[in-house]
Amino acid sequence: MPSLKRKQVRYSAKAGLPPGALIHIGNQSTEPVTIELLDYSEGGSKVAEISDVVELKNFVNTDTVSWVNVNGIHDTKLVSEIGKIYGIHDLVLEDILNTDHYPKVEPFDDYVFFTMKMISLNNGKARREQLSIVFSKAFVLCFQERKGDVFDPLRERIQKGSGVIRKKGTDYLVYRLIDTVVDNYFFIVEDIEEKLVVLEEKVIMKTEEDHTREIQLMKREILSLRRSLIPLRDAVSSLEKGFSELIEPVNDKYFHDVYDHLIQIHDNLETNREMLSGMMDMQMANMSNRMNQVMKVLTVIASLFIPLTFIAGIYGMNFENMPELHWKYGYFGAWGLMLTVFVLMLVFFKRKNWF
Amino acid sequence: MPSLKRKQVRYSAKAGLPPGALIHIGNQSTEPVTIELLDYSEGGSKVAEISDVVELKNFVNTDTVSWVNVNGIHDTKLVSEIGKIYGIHDLVLEDILNTDHYPKVEPFDDYVFFTMKMISLNNGKARREQLSIVFSKAFVLCFQERKGDVFDPLRERIQKGSGVIRKKGTDYLVYRLIDTVVDNYFFIVEDIEEKLVVLEEKVIMKTEEDHTREIQLMKREILSLRRSLIPLRDAVSSLEKGFSELIEPVNDKYFHDVYDHLIQIHDNLETNREMLSGMMDMQMANMSNRMNQVMKVLTVIASLFIPLTFIAGIYGMNFENMPELHWKYGYFGAWGLMLTVFVLMLVFFKRKNWF
Amino acid sequence: MPSLKRKQVRYSAKAGLPPGALIHIGNQSTEPVTIELLDYSEGGSKVAEISDVVELKNFVNTDTVSWVNVNGIHDTKLVSEIGKIYGIHDLVLEDILNTDHYPKVEPFDDYVFFTMKMISLNNGKARREQLSIVFSKAFVLCFQERKGDVFDPLRERIQKGSGVIRKKGTDYLVYRLIDTVVDNYFFIVEDIEEKLVVLEEKVIMKTEEDHTREIQLMKREILSLRRSLIPLRDAVSSLEKGFSELIEPVNDKYFHDVYDHLIQIHDNLETNREMLSGMMDMQMANMSNRMNQVMKVLTVIASLFIPLTFIAGIYGMNFENMPELHWKYGYFGAWGLMLTVFVLMLVFFKRKNWF
Amino acid sequence: MPSLKRKQVRYSAKAGLPPGALIHIGNQSTEPVTIELLDYSEGGSKVAEISDVVELKNFVNTDTVSWVNVNGIHDTKLVSEIGKIYGIHDLVLEDILNTDHYPKVEPFDDYVFFTMKMISLNNGKARREQLSIVFSKAFVLCFQERKGDVFDPLRERIQKGSGVIRKKGTDYLVYRLIDTVVDNYFFIVEDIEEKLVVLEEKVIMKTEEDHTREIQLMKREILSLRRSLIPLRDAVSSLEKGFSELIEPVNDKYFHDVYDHLIQIHDNLETNREMLSGMMDMQMANMSNRMNQVMKVLTVIASLFIPLTFIAGIYGMNFENMPELHWKYGYFGAWGLMLTVFVLMLVFFKRKNWF
Amino acid sequence: MPSLKRKQVRYSAKAGLPPGALIHIGNQSTEPVTIELLDYSEGGSKVAEISDVVELKNFVNTDTVSWVNVNGIHDTKLVSEIGKIYGIHDLVLEDILNTDHYPKVEPFDDYVFFTMKMISLNNGKARREQLSIVFSKAFVLCFQERKGDVFDPLRERIQKGSGVIRKKGTDYLVYRLIDTVVDNYFFIVEDIEEKLVVLEEKVIMKTEEDHTREIQLMKREILSLRRSLIPLRDAVSSLEKGFSELIEPVNDKYFHDVYDHLIQIHDNLETNREMLSGMMDMQMANMSNRMNQVMKVLTVIASLFIPLTFIAGIYGMNFENMPELHWKYGYFGAWGLMLTVFVLMLVFFKRKNWF
Repeated sequence: MPSLKRKQVRYSAKAGLPPGALIHIGNQSTEPVTIELLDYSEGGSKVAEISDVVELKNFVNTDTVSWVNVNGIHDTKLVSEIGKIYGIHDLVLEDILNTDHYPKVEPFDDYVFFTMKMISLNNGKARREQLSIVFSKAFVLCFQERKGDVFDPLRERIQKGSGVIRKKGTDYLVYRLIDTVVDNYFFIVEDIEEKLVVLEEKVIMKTEEDHTREIQLMKREILSLRRSLIPLRDAVSSLEKGFSELIEPVNDKYFHDVYDHLIQIHDNLETNREMLSGMMDMQMANMSNRMNQVMKVLTVIASLFIPLTFIAGIYGMNFENMPELHWKYGYFGAWGLMLTVFVLMLVFFKRKNWF
Repeated sequence: MPSLKRKQVRYSAKAGLPPGALIHIGNQSTEPVTIELLDYSEGGSKVAEISDVVELKNFVNTDTVSWVNVNGIHDTKLVSEIGKIYGIHDLVLEDILNTDHYPKVEPFDDYVFFTMKMISLNNGKARREQLSIVFSKAFVLCFQERKGDVFDPLRERIQKGSGVIRKKGTDYLVYRLIDTVVDNYFFIVEDIEEKLVVLEEKVIMKTEEDHTREIQLMKREILSLRRSLIPLRDAVSSLEKGFSELIEPVNDKYFHDVYDHLIQIHDNLETNREMLSGMMDMQMANMSNRMNQVMKVLTVIASLFIPLTFIAGIYGMNFENMPELHWKYGYFGAWGLMLTVFVLMLVFFKRKNWF
Repeated sequence: MPSLKRKQVRYSAKAGLPPGALIHIGNQSTEPVTIELLDYSEGGSKVAEISDVVELKNFVNTDTVSWVNVNGIHDTKLVSEIGKIYGIHDLVLEDILNTDHYPKVEPFDDYVFFTMKMISLNNGKARREQLSIVFSKAFVLCFQERKGDVFDPLRERIQKGSGVIRKKGTDYLVYRLIDTVVDNYFFIVEDIEEKLVVLEEKVIMKTEEDHTREIQLMKREILSLRRSLIPLRDAVSSLEKGFSELIEPVNDKYFHDVYDHLIQIHDNLETNREMLSGMMDMQMANMSNRMNQVMKVLTVIASLFIPLTFIAGIYGMNFENMPELHWKYGYFGAWGLMLTVFVLMLVFFKRKNWF
Repeated sequence: MPSLKRKQVRYSAKAGLPPGALIHIGNQSTEPVTIELLDYSEGGSKVAEISDVVELKNFVNTDTVSWVNVNGIHDTKLVSEIGKIYGIHDLVLEDILNTDHYPKVEPFDDYVFFTMKMISLNNGKARREQLSIVFSKAFVLCFQERKGDVFDPLRERIQKGSGVIRKKGTDYLVYRLIDTVVDNYFFIVEDIEEKLVVLEEKVIMKTEEDHTREIQLMKREILSLRRSLIPLRDAVSSLEKGFSELIEPVNDKYFHDVYDHLIQIHDNLETNREMLSGMMDMQMANMSNRMNQVMKVLTVIASLFIPLTFIAGIYGMNFENMPELHWKYGYFGAWGLMLTVFVLMLVFFKRKNWF
Repeated sequence: MPSLKRKQVRYSAKAGLPPGALIHIGNQSTEPVTIELLDYSEGGSKVAEISDVVELKNFVNTDTVSWVNVNGIHDTKLVSEIGKIYGIHDLVLEDILNTDHYPKVEPFDDYVFFTMKMISLNNGKARREQLSIVFSKAFVLCFQERKGDVFDPLRERIQKGSGVIRKKGTDYLVYRLIDTVVDNYFFIVEDIEEKLVVLEEKVIMKTEEDHTREIQLMKREILSLRRSLIPLRDAVSSLEKGFSELIEPVNDKYFHDVYDHLIQIHDNLETNREMLSGMMDMQMANMSNRMNQVMKVLTVIASLFIPLTFIAGIYGMNFENMPELHWKYGYFGAWGLMLTVFVLMLVFFKRKNWF
């Protein structure tokens, strides 16, 4: 069982610093930060790897949609430079760097800031990172904690020009990004549900094992997901209601659809949580039951033989004057007595339904 | 005990697909999809089996009420074609195909979308499927997961022309559909209530059995029903309050009546849930009690005989110089001593109320 | 212990029927239905037993207040006829016949419908029936499940003309009816409270008994009362706030007073519920405690004698060469050894505070 | 342990009576009712003992503030007469006489009615009575259940003319009355907190005792206080917000201050309640722990000696042909065997950390 | 384990005093109270130690920002004098002196009063004191319980003129003060989280120890923090929404940022609280498990040897006529019988999975 402690920079690193001080809070990394650009309009699309952030300036105010992906936020200087190019407020940059931040959405004059957790299943293990999105009419800036995400099918569709995505603006791209992340939540929840069903069967079947640890770990997983989920639901809900001029009313129903999905996920989680607590009760009952069974065996065996041993003890005494010892069938009489006691005890336990 | 896992296509099948992609999520099926049409007006009614969806076009804009029943949604192509004929939004079609979707109602310009769970008792087992309704002034489209539903009495009444139903519009038909489904909820809840009373009696009477598994299964059933119920109640509640022009104000009180029923059902469920949790407590107390009883028997028997066996052991020792052994009535004295101890112990346990 | 199942027509009897179909849901009865009329104005009062419902027509539109009491609702035809005479909507009649319905109030154009549970103590047992009231300016129609109610003192006051009641309209009579019913709730709650105090004393004093069953039954009683109470409180609350023109503002404070009483009752119930859950905890602790006590006795007795019996066993062995057996005071030495062990064990248990 | 039942007139005494019927509900008393008058203005103050209620008429409409204290409400006739003099509504008088009533405030045309529980510590015991206040511009009427209250310092200040109180109106006096009562709540809460800390230490230290009963009694105390507190908080909260013309806006901040105190008290109570529930958990864990300890001792002793006794039993058998018995060192060999078994068992238990 | 009682003046000291009476409620102290002044504007800054409160008068109405720090509030006379100089209402002074007060914000005509708990980690121990802030356009008055706080980095930045702080007004300074305190809350929460992870590992690993006491102490810590947190969150939330003219709208987003942090902290606390309750369940399960294990060992050993001892007892009887005793291989036959029983029992326990 590995330690539950994580190696990371925590909030305490900010002690004594002024607001807007850019400190990366989260898992440390030494990987180089890469920046990908995907610039598209109805006419076509262009992919580029950005090596110098200054190049980004050309895409700030264009008619095309520029989707800029920053893979890695541990290089705070780089993030700060990007912030300056796009005119992002220091407090927003601070939130982008704080990977402990809860999901939220905040409107600004020229852009909207949206942050959420991107959770995906990777070989059966949940891979969790923070995704922060800053978007205006012309650009969609994504900050991720590391390379690799769930958006590859989306990139492909944009490059191939399939569907309506190239005909739509940045708001639709943001919707597609959020929707893709939320779809992955579904997969996580389904994964949890499957594990839970397996665990429940184990609790029901393998009643002699202790599953409390697994139940607690499952609970931790659900609590952690719920913590990302509830504020995200609220953030998406506010997006759909005339939140910013950057979102066209025609796209409201898409955000509402995401909201619907989030409610469904939340719903599943809550039901699973209640099932978990029922499983804990069952586990406790199992233990009590097992104890009862152990005690019954002890009680039956001890109660059967203790009186018999006593009888044997009586006739093992060495008194000179013990008439029974000299009877011809004394020994067989003792056996008879013992058998009688034995049978009476058996009847007694049978009546009590003890075996 | 059968496995709790279900064989079905889950949401994860949608990984990487764009929104509105039509994937059937739910139990797989190979049954052919059938489409029934029941077209009626005050004047008369007509029943037809539709073999080619193109025929439906004739009923989109008529003065009569066209109730179209699609039995089976696993043929996504068919659903898509029907969607095109009636001009239904892709996101709605997606929801129709997702049998995990929670109950909701959504208004559109020309039609209203309503989805709920249809649960009916079938030989004592709950049969559960999703019912999605799309209705406008001229048609009521019902999508069900398979053939067979709870609406046969309703069909009969329409064909016979009994009651007011043929004089009313689509909104009244929708009300009757929902009302019929909700009535079946009552039957389910009554079934649960009866099972619960039986279970409670078992917990009270057969205190030596372990009923936690049954309690947990009952809890699962109630949780599952509640999950369908609460959003349905909210959906019906919004229907009654000037929700759409498709619902005439004169019919508001009918929807309010359904809402009333849903509140009553919810109320029953909550009470049952509280009773269940009390039964879990009783079950635990039963186990503790039984353990106490087992322990008392062991304690009484062991405590009675252990000291006596010790006395017998004393006089079974082989020391050369043991005066008591040579006393004339030593043996009877030993018996006297043992009987005295026995009686004292009995008095002690009697005082403790142990038997 | 009698079965908890009740013999009655349940909601399932309505399967397949149209809305407003009049089916009596509740305990079956073969008693004849009686109708009492009490017609009064400031000038005087008149009592009559109505044998033919047609007679009621004379009292629909009069200046006097006509209080009509229908004792028994199992004769659905009769109820339907009365409904026609007073112009009551079919859905209201359906609710009147459904004795499972939760308390509510509903305004109509010409009348107000109010339904609640009438619970009264009858020789220490709660007698529970549904009371539905339909009132307009001219009449107050009461539907009860059977003959006999809590309104006799009220009838007497009206006939004697004591108090202000004959000077007031139907709204004041309705208030007096509700108030009388709510007063009886107080008596029920006081009865519960007294039983609870007795039960708590038993849990504290008779710690060796199992009171979980009684606690569960008490919980069931409180839950059941609460289920009638909360919707009633809401219904009364809406009555006091300009709910209908049938209620004169000058009488608002009376309804507010009833509302006050309902809050007080609810308050008491909640406190009792919390006390009950505390009693369950105490009961569980009692059981644990008792088990501890039993185990201690077993442990002390077994631990005292098992080593002694071992020593006796040693000197009961039949080896040829056992020097101690031939010592002159071997036997007494053995006794000395055993006494020493005994005393040491006693000291050990004393230190552990085990007796 | 004294009975928990109280000797008192309960609500059931009102069975069959009309609203506004004056019945005293609460602890019975035969003490004579006394009435104190404290009449003051900026100029001076006058104290008087009122023997005939008719004298009160002189103080109904004066420029001075008349604080009338009625000690005892069991003389319903007297209360009724006072009510007539001051023009108090019958429903208000009914509430004054009902000592089970929950705290509330109600405005009337000429006066405001306020009722609350006055709880004070008296030699470590909580003394609880109902205090009802009726005030207009000219008078403040206080109804208490018995002689003796917490207002003596206030009376002294008024008579001495210290502070601003003589310069202010009835609203300020009412504030001071409520504030004094709420201050006493603080003392009660502090008392509870201190008892709770003592109890918690006992639960932690004296783990072999059963403290569930004390925890339950503490819970009862907190629940009872909370029941008085929450409606009082709401009543005071409504007082501060332009509730009545009888309260000058300049005094709003005083009522807000009382509200602040009530929130603080409620806050403390809730924390204490959560601590109590944690203590119940600890108590249960203590019991489990103790049981574990008892069981370990039994298991160790029994498991050590049972195999040894068996060995001794073997060589106590009387078979003719038992070679070991005739070996020269057979006896010592048996001892060796027994010691080996003993040591092995000790090692086994040591490994299990059982002692 | 030290006593949980604290040595302090409690609220009861106020018994009988008028409102606004200045009594210090909290830990007593004899340290001299010191007053620090930090006066700054964009041009420069000045630090001074104030020995006579009269000096403060010069800073009440200036263009510069005067940050006055009062270290210690046990000198009520001094606090009262400061209150007079700045024109602070008596009720505010009362709140400043009451260190039990919950966090709140209150606007007055010329100033705003804000009070909160300042909690900082000091060598791994939480140091907790009340911080009350009174600010107008010209001054920021801070009242602390003792010397030493978390603001030193802030003082340094002001004196050095780094950042924007010297260019901003009192509202920005207040924001920075609150923000600094809230940052320290993060450190506390991280500390709790780390302790909790350690405790959880101990509960999982060292299952034979009783960790309930530690869990209860952790719960106390979380409850106590939560009690400071929730009202603080509400106070900060109201600050950001056009609360007072003293806060410029341009600074709203800063207060919103603090609010965000408080939500995140609260969120962490709640998750930790749920984890704690799961740990309590695990602890209980551990105990049950351990008991099961102990019982199994006892049952196996006792059940193995009790029947064998009985057999040995049989052949230790002294009957004259016991044929087996005279058989040549009787002894070895007895051994065979015993071994058979032994092996059968082993198989039985193996089947039950008991070892």
